[in-house]
Amino acid sequence: MSTKIKVGVLGATGAVGQKFVTLLEDHPWFELTELAASDRSAGKTYKDATAWRQYKPIPEQLKNQAIKPCEPGLDCRIVFSGLDSSVAGEIEKGFAQAGYIVVSNSRNHRMDEDVPLLVPEVNPDHLALIKSQQAKRGWSGAIVTNPNCSTIGLVLALAPLHQKFGVKRVVVVTMQALSGAGYPGHSAIDMVGNVIPFIGGGEEEKMETEPLKIMGSMDGNAVRFADCLISAHTNRVSVEDGHMECVSVELGKKATPDEVAHVLANFSSLPQELRLPSAPERPVIVTDQRDRPQPRFDRDTGNGMSAVVGRIRECPVFDIRFVVLSHNTIRGAAGAAILNAELMKAKEMV
Amino acid sequence: MSTKIKVGVLGATGAVGQKFVTLLEDHPWFELTELAASDRSAGKTYKDATAWRQYKPIPEQLKNQAIKPCEPGLDCRIVFSGLDSSVAGEIEKGFAQAGYIVVSNSRNHRMDEDVPLLVPEVNPDHLALIKSQQAKRGWSGAIVTNPNCSTIGLVLALAPLHQKFGVKRVVVVTMQALSGAGYPGHSAIDMVGNVIPFIGGGEEEKMETEPLKIMGSMDGNAVRFADCLISAHTNRVSVEDGHMECVSVELGKKATPDEVAHVLANFSSLPQELRLPSAPERPVIVTDQRDRPQPRFDRDTGNGMSAVVGRIRECPVFDIRFVVLSHNTIRGAAGAAILNAELMKAKEMV
Amino acid sequence: MSTKIKVGVLGATGAVGQKFVTLLEDHPWFELTELAASDRSAGKTYKDATAWRQYKPIPEQLKNQAIKPCEPGLDCRIVFSGLDSSVAGEIEKGFAQAGYIVVSNSRNHRMDEDVPLLVPEVNPDHLALIKSQQAKRGWSGAIVTNPNCSTIGLVLALAPLHQKFGVKRVVVVTMQALSGAGYPGHSAIDMVGNVIPFIGGGEEEKMETEPLKIMGSMDGNAVRFADCLISAHTNRVSVEDGHMECVSVELGKKATPDEVAHVLANFSSLPQELRLPSAPERPVIVTDQRDRPQPRFDRDTGNGMSAVVGRIRECPVFDIRFVVLSHNTIRGAAGAAILNAELMKAKEMV
Amino acid sequence: MSTKIKVGVLGATGAVGQKFVTLLEDHPWFELTELAASDRSAGKTYKDATAWRQYKPIPEQLKNQAIKPCEPGLDCRIVFSGLDSSVAGEIEKGFAQAGYIVVSNSRNHRMDEDVPLLVPEVNPDHLALIKSQQAKRGWSGAIVTNPNCSTIGLVLALAPLHQKFGVKRVVVVTMQALSGAGYPGHSAIDMVGNVIPFIGGGEEEKMETEPLKIMGSMDGNAVRFADCLISAHTNRVSVEDGHMECVSVELGKKATPDEVAHVLANFSSLPQELRLPSAPERPVIVTDQRDRPQPRFDRDTGNGMSAVVGRIRECPVFDIRFVVLSHNTIRGAAGAAILNAELMKAKEMV
Repeated sequence: MSTKIKVGVLGATGAVGQKFVTLLEDHPWFELTELAASDRSAGKTYKDATAWRQYKPIPEQLKNQAIKPCEPGLDCRIVFSGLDSSVAGEIEKGFAQAGYIVVSNSRNHRMDEDVPLLVPEVNPDHLALIKSQQAKRGWSGAIVTNPNCSTIGLVLALAPLHQKFGVKRVVVVTMQALSGAGYPGHSAIDMVGNVIPFIGGGEEEKMETEPLKIMGSMDGNAVRFADCLISAHTNRVSVEDGHMECVSVELGKKATPDEVAHVLANFSSLPQELRLPSAPERPVIVTDQRDRPQPRFDRDTGNGMSAVVGRIRECPVFDIRFVVLSHNTIRGAAGAAILNAELMKAKEMV
Repeated sequence: MSTKIKVGVLGATGAVGQKFVTLLEDHPWFELTELAASDRSAGKTYKDATAWRQYKPIPEQLKNQAIKPCEPGLDCRIVFSGLDSSVAGEIEKGFAQAGYIVVSNSRNHRMDEDVPLLVPEVNPDHLALIKSQQAKRGWSGAIVTNPNCSTIGLVLALAPLHQKFGVKRVVVVTMQALSGAGYPGHSAIDMVGNVIPFIGGGEEEKMETEPLKIMGSMDGNAVRFADCLISAHTNRVSVEDGHMECVSVELGKKATPDEVAHVLANFSSLPQELRLPSAPERPVIVTDQRDRPQPRFDRDTGNGMSAVVGRIRECPVFDIRFVVLSHNTIRGAAGAAILNAELMKAKEMV
Repeated sequence: MSTKIKVGVLGATGAVGQKFVTLLEDHPWFELTELAASDRSAGKTYKDATAWRQYKPIPEQLKNQAIKPCEPGLDCRIVFSGLDSSVAGEIEKGFAQAGYIVVSNSRNHRMDEDVPLLVPEVNPDHLALIKSQQAKRGWSGAIVTNPNCSTIGLVLALAPLHQKFGVKRVVVVTMQALSGAGYPGHSAIDMVGNVIPFIGGGEEEKMETEPLKIMGSMDGNAVRFADCLISAHTNRVSVEDGHMECVSVELGKKATPDEVAHVLANFSSLPQELRLPSAPERPVIVTDQRDRPQPRFDRDTGNGMSAVVGRIRECPVFDIRFVVLSHNTIRGAAGAAILNAELMKAKEMV
Repeated sequence: MSTKIKVGVLGATGAVGQKFVTLLEDHPWFELTELAASDRSAGKTYKDATAWRQYKPIPEQLKNQAIKPCEPGLDCRIVFSGLDSSVAGEIEKGFAQAGYIVVSNSRNHRMDEDVPLLVPEVNPDHLALIKSQQAKRGWSGAIVTNPNCSTIGLVLALAPLHQKFGVKRVVVVTMQALSGAGYPGHSAIDMVGNVIPFIGGGEEEKMETEPLKIMGSMDGNAVRFADCLISAHTNRVSVEDGHMECVSVELGKKATPDEVAHVLANFSSLPQELRLPSAPERPVIVTDQRDRPQPRFDRDTGNGMSAVVGRIRECPVFDIRFVVLSHNTIRGAAGAAILNAELMKAKEMV
C-alpha cells in the first residue's frame, strides 16, 4: 500500500494543470488521486475533457479517471491549484477552510499579508505566516503561493545578491515565452516575425512587487518588504518556453562581476540541503559563454528548475548587469508549486 | 540633361549597398551612376555579382552596369559607403582625400573627433566639423557618418527629451532584427523559437557612446559630449526588420508621461523645415495603443524614417520609460546616410 | 457627384471584410458606402467595432461610420460578402432575393449548380448561369462566388494547361499561410517551429472539386465539370500570407517543361483585355530562379493578384510538376471577389 | 576491462558527427575511442575544435581528447562517417581498404552497386553485397551506407506496403527541417515567415532512386531495384528537426486505409527481433489524431527512431495517401548508421 500523500489538481485540464499532472507522475512523495476542473469538464474522463498538449502522454492510470468539480470533498490532503485567476480566489479559500493545504500557482492570494509567497531557496521562513493565516481566518487548512512566471527567474538571481550585497534598484526587461500566456494565448498571425511589447494581467506590477515580498524578512507575524525599487518592461517573443530577462542592478555594497558570479554559482539553500525531490542541484547556474543563456538550449537546466545567469558584467549606470533565463511553466509555475509542497512535507506541515 | 548630383555606392553588392540602390532609385536630387564593390565583384555586371534580396527588383538601368573597384576615379561627387568595417576605414579616407564627399554607414570613423556623427534632426550643426577635418587632414573631400542601427531609434527618442528636460541616465534593452547582422547573419537553426542575448562587434559600446556624441554640443571646433550615462543590453530576436528598444530614463528635470509624449509627438527639426526628400513628416510618432509599436506593423512608419514610441509611462526607478522602434536598414542605415547627404546638399556643402 | 457604383461589405469587421475595405479604398468604379456586420457590432462605429489588423490604416471617412446589420435595406447595388460560412448561406440568399448583386467569398453557394464559381480569366462565360439562377429562384438579384483561397493558385496554373493540353490527374500538396485560418486562427504556441498537416472545414474536398467546376464548360444552362481527378493534401505552415502548392500533373497531351512555361507565361484573358482595374497584367508569372516562388518575396506579385509558378520540370510519375504561389487574402479572397464584380460591371450586369 | 567494440567518428566536429558522439555515449556495445576530423581541427582538443550544438553536453571523457586526422591508423574497428560529401568518397574507401568497417551517412557510395544501402528493418539481406564488395575491390574492410534523411521516412512507410501490396507509383512532397541543411545552413533572414521550395544537392533525385534500391531484392550478387516510380518535391520549412512528407501511393493490389494502417502499425522486423539497442519497439507508429504527426510533438517517437504515419486515407488519384514524419538527424542520419552497425555486430560481421 502506498504511503504517499494524496494530492489533487484543481484546473487539471488547463495548461498549468497538465504540467502538474506531468510533473507529479512517479513523484516519490505525492500520489495524484484527484483531478478537478470546471463544471464544463466535471464528469467527463480526463482524456476526453483535456486537449492534452504535453510532450509526454497522459499517465495511463489517469486517462479514464473522472473529473470532479472544484469543491471540497476530494480525497486528498494537498490540492495544487492551476486555476484561472478569475475563479481561483474563492475556490482556494473554500478548500483551505475545509482543511486542505492549497498550493497555488494563481495570483489571487500572493500578496495577501498572511499568505506565504514562497520560494523555498529564498524565504522558507515565510511559512511561519501560515499560523497567523489559520488563526485569523479560522482555517484548518492553508494557502501557500508561488510567484509569477516572470518573477521567479529575477528573484532567484537577485536574492543571493540581496543577501550578500543588498539590492537597491533594478531595471529589468523581459522577453517572455508564448506559453506564459496560457493556451491558446497569442494568435500565430500576430507573432510570426514579430515582438509584442506588452503583457496584460498586471505582469509588470507583479514583477515590481512580488520580489519585495519574497526578499522581505519576517517581522513578528508579518513580512517586512525588501527596501528596493524595481522597474519592469515586459515583452512577448516567439519562443515556446523560457523567459529571458535583462537585468541592471544597483547594489548596496559594490561588487565585481566575478564576485557576483561567485555568489550566484555557489548559492545553495534549504531545498538543496533537504534534498527535496524537485530541488535542482544548483538553484542558479552561471554560464560564461558570451551568447548564453538562450531559451531553447538552456531552459531545461536542472530539469527546468534552475535559473541560468549569463553575461555578468559591469553596468555603466548601476553596478551589475546580466541576463537570466528560467523555465516559465516548470520553475515558473507547476514545478514551483510542487517544490513548495515538498518543503512543507519536509517540515512536517502536511 | 539631368542636373542631379552624381552619386556612387561603395559595397554596392552587400545588404546595405542593395538598400542604397533601392532607396536611390528615382531620387529627386541624386543620380546613382557608379557601383563599386570588392575586387571579387569588380568587372562583373551588377546583376551577376549581386545576390539581390530586396522586395523591389534591381533598377532596370543598373542590371548590366559594370561594377568598379572601390577606388577613387568614380565619376560622381558623393559616395555612399556600405562597406564592411574590416575595409571601410582606409577606403573611405582614400575617397575623402581624393575630393569625394563620403557619406558612410560604416562604424570606422564615427567616433573620430573631426568627423560628424550626424542625425539631421538632432545635430545638424556638427557639420561644422568638416572644416577642421579638411584642414587637419589636408582633404578636399570629407567623411560624414550616421549612427549604428540600434543607436538611431534611441537617439531620436532621447534627443528631444534631452533638449527639453535633460537626460541623465538611461538603461536600454534591445530586441534587434535579423537583418541587423547582415546577410547571411544568423543560422536559421539558431533562431527558430529562440533569442540570442548577445550581439557582437561592440554593439553595446556603440549604443553607450554614440548618443553622447550626437547629443553633444559644438564647443569651438570640437564636440563636447553630452553628460549622460547609458547602459545597453542587446538581444537578437527572430524578426525580419525593425529594432525594438525598452528604455528607462532619468531626466534632469521632472516631466510627466503626458509632457514627454507631447514633446516627442511635436518634435520637428531642420530636415522637416527644409523638406528634405527623405525626411519623414514627423521624426517621432507617438502611439497610445497599449501593445504598440510592433516591428511588423510599425517599422515602415514614415517610409521607415520615423521612430515610433509607445507605452510612455512613469518608471519606478528613474522618471520615464517607453518602447521605441525604428527600421534598422532604412533609418538605421541607408536611409540615414541619404538623409545626411540631402542635408549637405541643402546646405550647399556638395 | 460620384458616378461610382455603391457597394457594401457584409462581415466588414472580420479579416476578409477588412481586406475588402482596404482594397476598395480609392477604387475607380466602386464606392464603399455600407458596412454591415453581426448584431454584436451593428450600431457601433467601424473603428470601435473592429480589431483592425491591416498595414494601411482604416480609411478616414469610414472610421466613424455606423455598422448596419446584415439585412437588405443597405443603400448600395453590390454587396461583397466576407461572412463566416456558418451564417453566409441564408443572408446571401436574402440579399439576392431583395435585388442585390452578392459577390461572395464564402463557400456556401460555390457548388450550387446555378451559381457561378467565377475566375474571370478562366470561366467568364459561367456568368450565363445567373439567368437561370434568377429564373429558377425568382430573384431580381444574384449570387456570384469566387473559389477557396487554396483553389485559386492551383486553378490559375491548371486552367491554361487544361485549355491547351488537357489535365487528367493532379496531385497537389499545399503549404498554407496562417491568415488562411482567419483571425485569431492558430495558437502561436502550436506553430512555433512546427507544421500542422491538416486544415479543417473541408479544405481538401474544396481543392478537389472546385477546379472541376471552374474548368468546366457551359452545356446549355449548366456547367459540365471538367473530367479530371485531383488529390489534395493540405498543410499549415508558419507564414503570414501566401499559399504554396507543389503540383504534379498528368496531361492529356504530352508537353515539355518549356512548352508548359510558355503557355503559362503567355496566358492572358478577358480581364486583361478589358483592363479591369484589379486585373494583373499577367495572371501567371513564371520564374526560372530555382528556389522561387517564396511566400515572403513573391506573394505581392501583380499587387497580390498574379499567381507565381516556378520549378517547372518533368514529373517521373506524371508529365509535369511545378510550384505555384498565390496571395490567399488578395487573389484568394477579397481581391478575387472585387475582380468578379469588375467583370460584371464591364459586362454591364450591374 | 571493456569488451565493447572500439569505434571512431569521422567528421566528429560537424553536425552529424556531434550527433554520433551524443548517441554513442553509454552505448552498450560500442565504445567511442577515436575522434577524427579535417586537418583544420586535427591536433586540437574536441572541446576546442567543436562548436558544440547538442542539448546534452560533450561527454566528459571526450572534452580534452585530441582530434586525429581522417586517415587509417585510428585505434578502432568501426568508423562512423559523418563526412561532407565533398571529401567522404576517397576517405571512406581508404578506411575500407585498410580493413575498417565504414558505416557511412554520406551519400557518396550509397548507389554503388556493391555497397549496401541499408535499412535494417527493410533489407538486412543486402548485407550480402559486402562479400562481392570485398572480393571485387580487394578490401578487408567494407563500406555500408544509410539513406538520405528524406528517404528514410518514406521508405519506412512504403516498404511494409510494398511487401504486402506492391507499390507502383508514388508522389511525395516534403516539408523538411532546417537541420537537414547542416550547420549553419539557411540564413535566418531567409526563413522567417517563409518557405523555400528547393533543396540542393540532388535531394529530389535521392528520394526518387534510393527507395528503389532499398526495396529491391537480392538477385545473385546484385540488387534488382524495385519496379516503382517516385516523384519528389522537396521544400524547406522553419522547423528545427523532423521531416514531414505527404505521400500519395498507387498500390499493386487494392487495399483500404484500415488495411494499410494495420500493416504499418504491425510492421516489425529483424532489428526488433534481435532487440538491437537502437531499434525502436515499432519502426512505424500509426496515429489516428486528425492533425498529427507534427514535427515538434512527434519527432522523438521511439527515441527519434520510429517514423510516425498519420492521416491514412483514400487518394482520389491513386489508392492511398498519408503523412509521414521522421527525425532527420536521428533516424535520418546518425541513429540510422548506428543501427546499421548494430545489425552487423549481431550478425557477427564485425
